[in-house]
Amino acid sequence: MLDTPARETGTGSGTTWTRKDLLDTDSLSREEIDLVLQTARGMKEVRSRPVAKVSTLRGVTVATLFYEQSTRTRATFEVAAKSLGADVVNLTASGSSVEKGESLIDTVRTLEAIGTDVIVMRHFRSGAPYLAARHTGASIINGGDGTHAHPTQALLDLFTMVNHLGSVEGRRVVIVGDILHSRVARSNAWTLLRLGAEVTLCGPATLLPRWFVPEVPGGGRCTVTTDFDRAIEGADVVMALRMQKERQQRGLIPSLREYIAGYQVNARRLERAAPGALLMHPGPMNEGIELSPDVAHGAQSRIEEQVANGVAVRMALLYLIAARSRS
Amino acid sequence: MLDTPARETGTGSGTTWTRKDLLDTDSLSREEIDLVLQTARGMKEVRSRPVAKVSTLRGVTVATLFYEQSTRTRATFEVAAKSLGADVVNLTASGSSVEKGESLIDTVRTLEAIGTDVIVMRHFRSGAPYLAARHTGASIINGGDGTHAHPTQALLDLFTMVNHLGSVEGRRVVIVGDILHSRVARSNAWTLLRLGAEVTLCGPATLLPRWFVPEVPGGGRCTVTTDFDRAIEGADVVMALRMQKERQQRGLIPSLREYIAGYQVNARRLERAAPGALLMHPGPMNEGIELSPDVAHGAQSRIEEQVANGVAVRMALLYLIAARSRS
Amino acid sequence: MLDTPARETGTGSGTTWTRKDLLDTDSLSREEIDLVLQTARGMKEVRSRPVAKVSTLRGVTVATLFYEQSTRTRATFEVAAKSLGADVVNLTASGSSVEKGESLIDTVRTLEAIGTDVIVMRHFRSGAPYLAARHTGASIINGGDGTHAHPTQALLDLFTMVNHLGSVEGRRVVIVGDILHSRVARSNAWTLLRLGAEVTLCGPATLLPRWFVPEVPGGGRCTVTTDFDRAIEGADVVMALRMQKERQQRGLIPSLREYIAGYQVNARRLERAAPGALLMHPGPMNEGIELSPDVAHGAQSRIEEQVANGVAVRMALLYLIAARSRS
Repeated sequence: MLDTPARETGTGSGTTWTRKDLLDTDSLSREEIDLVLQTARGMKEVRSRPVAKVSTLRGVTVATLFYEQSTRTRATFEVAAKSLGADVVNLTASGSSVEKGESLIDTVRTLEAIGTDVIVMRHFRSGAPYLAARHTGASIINGGDGTHAHPTQALLDLFTMVNHLGSVEGRRVVIVGDILHSRVARSNAWTLLRLGAEVTLCGPATLLPRWFVPEVPGGGRCTVTTDFDRAIEGADVVMALRMQKERQQRGLIPSLREYIAGYQVNARRLERAAPGALLMHPGPMNEGIELSPDVAHGAQSRIEEQVANGVAVRMALLYLIAARSRS
Repeated sequence: MLDTPARETGTGSGTTWTRKDLLDTDSLSREEIDLVLQTARGMKEVRSRPVAKVSTLRGVTVATLFYEQSTRTRATFEVAAKSLGADVVNLTASGSSVEKGESLIDTVRTLEAIGTDVIVMRHFRSGAPYLAARHTGASIINGGDGTHAHPTQALLDLFTMVNHLGSVEGRRVVIVGDILHSRVARSNAWTLLRLGAEVTLCGPATLLPRWFVPEVPGGGRCTVTTDFDRAIEGADVVMALRMQKERQQRGLIPSLREYIAGYQVNARRLERAAPGALLMHPGPMNEGIELSPDVAHGAQSRIEEQVANGVAVRMALLYLIAARSRS
Repeated sequence: MLDTPARETGTGSGTTWTRKDLLDTDSLSREEIDLVLQTARGMKEVRSRPVAKVSTLRGVTVATLFYEQSTRTRATFEVAAKSLGADVVNLTASGSSVEKGESLIDTVRTLEAIGTDVIVMRHFRSGAPYLAARHTGASIINGGDGTHAHPTQALLDLFTMVNHLGSVEGRRVVIVGDILHSRVARSNAWTLLRLGAEVTLCGPATLLPRWFVPEVPGGGRCTVTTDFDRAIEGADVVMALRMQKERQQRGLIPSLREYIAGYQVNARRLERAAPGALLMHPGPMNEGIELSPDVAHGAQSRIEEQVANGVAVRMALLYLIAARSRS
């Protein structure tokens, strides 16, 4: 069924993928993470060919079920699925029965019943994909739930770092911004700590969760600080998070001006990081707020690389999850 | 052009399909209904294969044109069409010219002109698909129009019954709920009566159309009653309809509490039906209103089977209609 | 990579296509226009086959990015792309990050990064596709921007005229209606003048731009007038534009009644045109306003032909632009 490149990449490792769902990165083992990265490398190779399309997942149906707006995540999954030959059905909150009060459980059961193999979902409520996964035999991939998790973003971020650094073990990764509300920060912390990175979570006190220090046995350490100028010193990776402008209205940050003064990544600050440090952002960015325009488009920016890697990593995850149920 | 399984199922019967459109079930002959069921059986077999995709309708373009929200009907048609190798273009009222006042006639003519072979449409106005069908050479499949008809739902319901009962001839089918506004009840009545079933339409007096007793020459009989406890006695099939909660506000039912007391299908009532009676619902259901949770997910529930059969029946209809115009 | 019919049509002329984008028709050379028309003829032949689908653009991803509503343009591009075997990803303002303030530049860069080859965009702001094209390596096809340009409409209009007239050189084309706000009129004027047609732009004084007389070296002449009855005399082509009803509210036309009296194309007026003159409209039309119902559906109407030709012309453009980047 599967053609060669995908089969090779998917099963080349000692580990095989057995999970039905991908809900967060907190329970992923080091071996599972490695398998995803390795498979993504094969997929990146597929994408680089003149005709970037294979039939590996022919006959597989992937549904995207988005209760929250998105361009890049939804489109990336759609491109990834189609590149592998899968069929894609898009459902959004607007225009579907989800608006007339059909429950999430009902919707995922319906999708399963019509033959959907994988449901990629985004939901404004933290935990919604867990509820969905318990009530369907279809695979659920969490494309972002509330302020909780965004595992595919974390895996593509990791893939981008590993491509440049070889490994993240012992590397210093600073994540800066609105940590409190960031599902990206949370999911990244888990993968990075699992693989032995030293993670610093940094932002204004009002946007830092005091409790947020996950302990990963045998993994890296996580520290939390409000002092960005000190945190960035010697960092190998600087990841800025999107600042929701409405936070200011709600009084969580004194003013954008002060936020920029204390936490914007600009050329002066980036110089204090390790030479060649990677500058990352999950997008969409508010240029001039989280990043100064010069560094956003500068030599150290990996932002567009992240987006491109998103296709390869999501192909890998779709492949691992969908092929699992076909063997 | 057509590969073997579909060709066999599509033309195995003495009857051949000649209709351009499927607008309702009222004019379908017994032979045409049999042809749909027989073709759907072949399609169900296709769906059960590891790679549930064929190229039977390669080069055929199917448009979905939904002026009313839907998850299951639209997604089912999309999956059905793609399983047969057709291309699908989705149009919804939101985001297309239908909002800037383009007429339905103009829209279907445009779709025909760009090469659409089949238009699956849902419209809030009863009769809209008839208007559309008169003004285009493309085939129109009615995916639900106002309170009038929902023929593909009726055919998948029938397919589900026949799969279990062998035939519906002489069988007692009770349809319970808001008969007055139900396009599902109407279209089901026609197919069931045509094939010789005894149909009972049951609900509160305010939701029963007094005039609704179609006569089908040589077919079954239809009775109308408000007494559900008596109607369910010995029934082979119990089909509960969705209760729109806004009916209560409009004074059509005294209260949901009283509706539940008189018309909810629960374990106690279901026991009065024939042993192994089929419990059906077109979905999405309001659990705890039309059905008690225990029976909704109980051994007699065929609700998810209905959804799954929706793919096979819609594949059959797309095939019969689209292949007709290719021969 | 490319199969025979498309290759032949695409490279049969001495000219080859080298443009990354199609933003307007103003800079297209006569040779480039001829190449588009010639390629479209090949595509029309492909569309006329029983299975109107080839694999010429297999592995190519086309995104539609519509910030303004559309049925026909978006659906036509989708059908065109799928007919050539490309994958299509649809993005609309509603339901995507464009609503949460993601910039156009960010969006097109994201689309490029995930492997989109061609972005078909419509935007309410004149000039937006130019901005997009400068910031992405993906090809941009302008599907209509504000009141500025609609190049694919102009090319399909030209294709329709040439199919009937052989050539537009020396032919008299009258475009009537709201010239001031019409991107269709502007883009048509450029192609027609380039190919040597005599163009008359006609409408009420308030809807005529006084400055609008493009000069094309070696091309036809353009005249502007308010006198439709005189302009239509002997015309080979009469193209009526859509009248936005809200213009009246804004006082730009005294009343629809007076507009109809002076500018509606009706049987009496059409008789004054050349025998067999072509009657065209970009759609969606307001029947009874721009055109009287009898002529709208009469023997001289080419309106549905325009829609059908839209598929062939857009296939040609997608092919020329996408195949360019693959060789």
